[in-house]
Amino acid sequence: MPYTAPVAEQRFVLEHIVRIAELAATERYHAASPDVIEAVLEGIGQLAEGEWAPLARAGDTVGAKWTPDGVVMPDGYKAAYKAYVEGGWGTIGVPEEFGGQGLPFAVQCAVLETLGSANMGFALAPILSVGAIEALQHHGTPEQQATWLPKLATGEWTGTMNLTEPQAGSDVGALRATATPRGDGTFSIKGTKIFISFGDHDLADNIVHLVLARTPDAPKGTKGISLFLVPKVRSDGTSNDVRVVSIEHKMGLHASPTCVLSFGDHDECVGELIGPEFGGMRAMFTMMNNARLNVGLQGVQVAEAATQKAVEYARERIQGAREGQPAAIIEHPDVRRMLMRMKAQTQAARALVYYAAGQVDRANLGDAAARDRLEIATPLAKAHGTDIGNEVASLGVQVHGGMGYIEETGAAQFFRDARITPIYEGTNGIQAADLVGRKLSLSNGAAFATLIEDLRGAAHPALGELVAACDSVGRRLQTADADDRLAASYPFLTMLSVATCGWLLEREAAEAGDDAFGKAKKAVVAFYLDQIVPEALGLRAAAEAPAAPLYALEAEAFAA
Amino acid sequence: MPYTAPVAEQRFVLEHIVRIAELAATERYHAASPDVIEAVLEGIGQLAEGEWAPLARAGDTVGAKWTPDGVVMPDGYKAAYKAYVEGGWGTIGVPEEFGGQGLPFAVQCAVLETLGSANMGFALAPILSVGAIEALQHHGTPEQQATWLPKLATGEWTGTMNLTEPQAGSDVGALRATATPRGDGTFSIKGTKIFISFGDHDLADNIVHLVLARTPDAPKGTKGISLFLVPKVRSDGTSNDVRVVSIEHKMGLHASPTCVLSFGDHDECVGELIGPEFGGMRAMFTMMNNARLNVGLQGVQVAEAATQKAVEYARERIQGAREGQPAAIIEHPDVRRMLMRMKAQTQAARALVYYAAGQVDRANLGDAAARDRLEIATPLAKAHGTDIGNEVASLGVQVHGGMGYIEETGAAQFFRDARITPIYEGTNGIQAADLVGRKLSLSNGAAFATLIEDLRGAAHPALGELVAACDSVGRRLQTADADDRLAASYPFLTMLSVATCGWLLEREAAEAGDDAFGKAKKAVVAFYLDQIVPEALGLRAAAEAPAAPLYALEAEAFAA
Repeated sequence: MPYTAPVAEQRFVLEHIVRIAELAATERYHAASPDVIEAVLEGIGQLAEGEWAPLARAGDTVGAKWTPDGVVMPDGYKAAYKAYVEGGWGTIGVPEEFGGQGLPFAVQCAVLETLGSANMGFALAPILSVGAIEALQHHGTPEQQATWLPKLATGEWTGTMNLTEPQAGSDVGALRATATPRGDGTFSIKGTKIFISFGDHDLADNIVHLVLARTPDAPKGTKGISLFLVPKVRSDGTSNDVRVVSIEHKMGLHASPTCVLSFGDHDECVGELIGPEFGGMRAMFTMMNNARLNVGLQGVQVAEAATQKAVEYARERIQGAREGQPAAIIEHPDVRRMLMRMKAQTQAARALVYYAAGQVDRANLGDAAARDRLEIATPLAKAHGTDIGNEVASLGVQVHGGMGYIEETGAAQFFRDARITPIYEGTNGIQAADLVGRKLSLSNGAAFATLIEDLRGAAHPALGELVAACDSVGRRLQTADADDRLAASYPFLTMLSVATCGWLLEREAAEAGDDAFGKAKKAVVAFYLDQIVPEALGLRAAAEAPAAPLYALEAEAFAA
Repeated sequence: MPYTAPVAEQRFVLEHIVRIAELAATERYHAASPDVIEAVLEGIGQLAEGEWAPLARAGDTVGAKWTPDGVVMPDGYKAAYKAYVEGGWGTIGVPEEFGGQGLPFAVQCAVLETLGSANMGFALAPILSVGAIEALQHHGTPEQQATWLPKLATGEWTGTMNLTEPQAGSDVGALRATATPRGDGTFSIKGTKIFISFGDHDLADNIVHLVLARTPDAPKGTKGISLFLVPKVRSDGTSNDVRVVSIEHKMGLHASPTCVLSFGDHDECVGELIGPEFGGMRAMFTMMNNARLNVGLQGVQVAEAATQKAVEYARERIQGAREGQPAAIIEHPDVRRMLMRMKAQTQAARALVYYAAGQVDRANLGDAAARDRLEIATPLAKAHGTDIGNEVASLGVQVHGGMGYIEETGAAQFFRDARITPIYEGTNGIQAADLVGRKLSLSNGAAFATLIEDLRGAAHPALGELVAACDSVGRRLQTADADDRLAASYPFLTMLSVATCGWLLEREAAEAGDDAFGKAKKAVVAFYLDQIVPEALGLRAAAEAPAAPLYALEAEAFAA
């Protein structure tokens, strides 16, 4: 389906939300000059539009296929992935010392946004590799970095994250995979992992699995978990005893093979420890934090793609009349309301995720306040970004009317693809728990206070009211007991996310010019502030309700 | 997948929302004694649980199949349909004079709810027949009624509605199918219709197509449309030149064949006029109004089924701990919040749809105020009922976590199946337009005033506030210009729907006893009033916004 990279919008958000000029003024990110950014946005746009988007439908209808020799991607994927590798797109965000281009994480986000709007399932391959690269960057030895990073950076090899086991979903501490020392510093890995995105494929020569497992006599729970690097193929070219048991039959995202992987069926699966023994959770969080932003980014991806498609349809589809003339449905007020909402929500999600990405870069520069801002923005970006992706994809189906329900149209694919994003990489409920649990009390509450302080700059009356409500609810939750906190967590997360989006969009409108882009931006932001922000105030009652009403109904009575 | 008919809840809602005792006290509905109701609810529950639900997954995975000889349903459907016919379930709501059991429409709703929760796609077959039966009841000649009604009533034959054409979706007036007099009182029908649910199948000996078409020299637009009855098979057993061109490849509802039908390829398709020439729209609205309630009912169906499934999963799935013990996820506050929301929304949708159904019965008894109540409740029941179905099905996926995205689990099927309901039978945007266009001004505004008068009985403070807001917004919209009305229509529809649901649920709680059922009811209603009602107040800003902000962005700028 046709897709056009929203280059002007991405550049604007990089300039005004990420404030990339500030980053480019530092030594670390000196490469991020306006010329380079422009070239990156245009270049990835061309690759995405020309080579990745045309494969999206086959990704859905044919999908990745399991075979006894491994997972096979649909026709064309290998060449399109090769173009990505050869264009150097994988190395965008990798530091120069590891063979990368040393551009900010926020710029990498723009690249991944474009790829994912063109082909969301396919773009998971590079996204997963980002996690593996970051784990090695932060926790690998220099030798491990030298061995694995260069080809992961280019994309010649891809990476995976292996957390989930059948009995341990969100509860990572319950995992059972084992890692037994082989006496030579390496470990023998054994266990089954499920839901492994791009756990196998034919796009790359090797796959670098990062696997959480327990060493002998490790403590129970999350404290006893260590991280291991387990290649699909050993350095001598032989198989490393990693078997693809099956791939899942999912509702969507069929271009992304979701694998069940069995490690060490023949006791010949060799892994190396990454970071210290029992340092698995910490290393995992390194992977996961940015992975969470990248999943929030998937919300932006699908929202942008669904909006473009719906706008195109609504401008072409003639139905009914206005002022006596046959009219395209975009002219009908309620259709236009849906499209305006899609645009406003998409821009809100982009502002939120890019903002968080900019804090990654600032935190990498040693900015402690940015680290706090990032920590609190991460669950918002992941959960609210993906909620928006789902809402917008659903509106896209609705704009298409009956045609939206027919698979050939393509609107339904976005709707199905998007539905996993509030689930994986920590369900949105887990994000909300993280927000009210760890993040509200982070730095003794200073992280939350900093965000609220930022938001107090808001000028729009409803937004000001929402910020004040978030402050009041948030401070209550800081001292509430655990159940009350958790019961209120999701509505509070949505309120705080909308407040943050409103604040960011208000800044965008204030800094937009009077050209066509600026005028459009102001119209979209006005809609967000006037109509979407007030909705979030409606969540206050739920965010202030204790847990008791939820338990007023016994667990057994739910089934009655 | 296992499903248990919610008999106690259905009986309660029939008693306290439909107030079925009032109906049973009339001559027309004298059959609706408590014993009969109990037998109906239990009986249809057994059929649905035992024979229809087990076929739901094959309906999705195998689906209805097009063949050159017509559409073939998956194995088992024919027998399950036969059991429905032989049980007399099709005749429940048909008046005794036409061979039916003369039970209220509201009881028929309960029957269809149960069938549809068990197998939503399959249940469309009887639902479509209801529309055909009603068109004949109200607009057929005695001869036509004698010929067609008895077998439609039993379900030996099924019915369809043929409105949509490729160029005429929501804009029925644009249709082009023709009906040319053959000189013997019958008409030669020619044209192509799309999106015809159960347009062909192998469940019944004949299919009675009700087709909108234009007679020669008919006026343009909706004024020139007439309704024709076109059987699949003529009385002499020969084919009536109705061809199934194809069936759609839909996102869900695969058990329901959605056909493209071609009438009169060989100029041998014969139809008979139903009602007067040019009376097509009026006859269509007869079919459609109750069909809209039945689609709102599909929201209840899928919400109930998705909730049962999610509750079952959440009670079995052990993950994480509470108070040091491994806990089922239903014990975690945010999961319980989702489940409570699912239950509350399902009960809200049921209250709303059954309430409207009860007004159908009162209107049939000649109650003019009930007719007004029905008219205004119909768009609410259709749009908000289906919105709830979608929200609840999505929450059901979320409760399942990663398993929810795997097709084998079944939660995804509800999510996909539900997505058509806000679209067909008049998109929810069309329902909102109907509300602010025709219904707000109906009986010079008395219909709306009557509803608001009813709602003023609400005791809960937030609900009282919401009712006052609906009154204020609604009165403004009555005199607003068309674009402003339409721009505000959807948020207003949601506000008014939530207010109506809140009022009905408040009544349910007030009339519930102190037994286990009553206690559960009160807990669920309290959650609805305390947490869902306030959300709707957040829509007020959007419901009060004019259309201008939507047009501040040019149609071309949406694509930029």
